[in-house]
Amino acid sequence: MKRGPGTLYGVGVGPGDPDLITLKAVKVLRAARIVAHFRKRGAPGHALTIARPHLASDTPELALEYPLTTEIRFSETAYIEAIRNFYAAASDSIRHLLEEGQDVALLCEGDPFFYGSFLHMYERLRGLVPIVVIPGVTGMSGCWTAAGAPITLGDDVLTVLPGTLDQDRLAAKLKATDAAAIMKVGHNLPKIREALRAAGRLDEAIYVERGTMAGERVAPLCQVETVAPPYFSIVLVPGCRGRRIR
Amino acid sequence: MKRGPGTLYGVGVGPGDPDLITLKAVKVLRAARIVAHFRKRGAPGHALTIARPHLASDTPELALEYPLTTEIRFSETAYIEAIRNFYAAASDSIRHLLEEGQDVALLCEGDPFFYGSFLHMYERLRGLVPIVVIPGVTGMSGCWTAAGAPITLGDDVLTVLPGTLDQDRLAAKLKATDAAAIMKVGHNLPKIREALRAAGRLDEAIYVERGTMAGERVAPLCQVETVAPPYFSIVLVPGCRGRRIR
Repeated sequence: MKRGPGTLYGVGVGPGDPDLITLKAVKVLRAARIVAHFRKRGAPGHALTIARPHLASDTPELALEYPLTTEIRFSETAYIEAIRNFYAAASDSIRHLLEEGQDVALLCEGDPFFYGSFLHMYERLRGLVPIVVIPGVTGMSGCWTAAGAPITLGDDVLTVLPGTLDQDRLAAKLKATDAAAIMKVGHNLPKIREALRAAGRLDEAIYVERGTMAGERVAPLCQVETVAPPYFSIVLVPGCRGRRIR
Repeated sequence: MKRGPGTLYGVGVGPGDPDLITLKAVKVLRAARIVAHFRKRGAPGHALTIARPHLASDTPELALEYPLTTEIRFSETAYIEAIRNFYAAASDSIRHLLEEGQDVALLCEGDPFFYGSFLHMYERLRGLVPIVVIPGVTGMSGCWTAAGAPITLGDDVLTVLPGTLDQDRLAAKLKATDAAAIMKVGHNLPKIREALRAAGRLDEAIYVERGTMAGERVAPLCQVETVAPPYFSIVLVPGCRGRRIR
C-alpha cells in the first residue's frame, strides 16, 4: 500500500532563546522524523542550535547550506543565479523526502511567514504537498523586549524596514512613522545611521545585537561604533509613547 | 526580616491558540503565585482563557476590569478620564501586591511590548519594582499564518497601522507600503475598506477574525459584509512576493 506524501512543517523557532519557542513547535520537533534547516557553509546553523534541546538526539538532519560565503565576491547576476539554483535544489530535496511519505520539520528563525528562506520553499511546494506553518516569536519582538523598549502603544504606526533599501527611501520612511524596526542591518549600518540622522531620529535609535541570545548587546545607536554588525542585529526606533515610557 | 518587593512578569500569551504560548511563559505561569489580567466587565477574559491550561487550578486571580462598556456612550473627555483612573487604580493594586513581596504574572495577549494595556502598567511601575517581560507570538503573526498568507519576503516594507487613524492617512500609508497589517479593526472596518479602495489595494486585502482561535474566519475583505467585527479581527495586505506566492 502506497503511503500519501508526508507533511512539511514550517516551524518558527523564535528569536534565539530556546525557551522562547512555542509549545506547538516543541510538539512538532519532538515528533520529527527529519529536521531540515538552512545554514551558512561550515556553520552549525542558528535555527538548529535553538531547536536542539527539543529534538531527539538521533533525529536525522537535512542541512541546506547556502552556496555563498562572504569570502568570495560574486557579481549580482551570478549571486542571483546561485541562490535560485540553491533554493530549487533545496526544495527538490525536501519534496523527495515528502513524496517518500516522510514528514519534514523545516526550522525557521523567528516567524516563518515574516521574511526568511522558508518562504522560498513555501513558494515552490505550495499546493503540491501538505504544509503546516507554526508561527513564532519574531526576532524583532525578542530584540525590543531585550532592549526594555516598548515599540508601540495606542495609535502608533510601526514600519518594518529592510536595511537594504536606499538611504533616501529609508530616511523618508523613518520620518513618516512613529516606530520603526530596521532589519538586515549588517554592512548597511553606516547607511542606516545616515538615514536616521537625515530623518532627525538618530538620537532615538537603539541597536540590538544577538537579542535574547548569549552575547546579547543593547546600546543607543549613537554610541555604537561597529561598522559591520553580525547577522543577528537590528535597529529599533520606539514609538511616541514608548519613548515617553523610556 | 522584611522581604524585597516581588517581581512583575509581563507574560505574552500569544495570539489565541493555547499551544502558541512560549515555554518561558508556561514556566512563569506554572510558578505564578498570583495571575493578573485585563478583561471586559462580565467577560471571562481572553488572556486568561489562553493561559488557563498552564495555571494551577488554585492560582489566585486579580481581574482588572475595564470600566467602560459599549452599552453606555461616553464623551471623549469622560472616557479618557475614566481610563486614566482605571489604569492608575490597576497599577496601585499590582504595586500593593508586589510591595508585599508577592510575584505577579500579568497576562498580555500577543506580545507585551506591542500595543496593549500592559504598557500602561509598565509606564507606571517601571523603575519602582522589578519587571520581567516575556515576548509572545503577536496576534498579527497568528493571523497571517491562519490565512496562509506570507506577509513579507526579501526587501518588503511592512507597515502596521491602527484602524483608528483617519481615512486619508490610512490610504496614504497603504499606498506607500508593500505589506500592511491593520489592527484595531472593529467599527473602523467601513473606513478601512474605503482607505484600501482609495489606495487601490482593496482586492489584495484579507480579513481574519479570531485567528488561531475557535471560530476562526479568513476571507478576502471584498467578500466580507460584516460592519462591526469582533475585537479579535485584523486586515492584512501581503507584500509583493507574498502576493506572488498566493
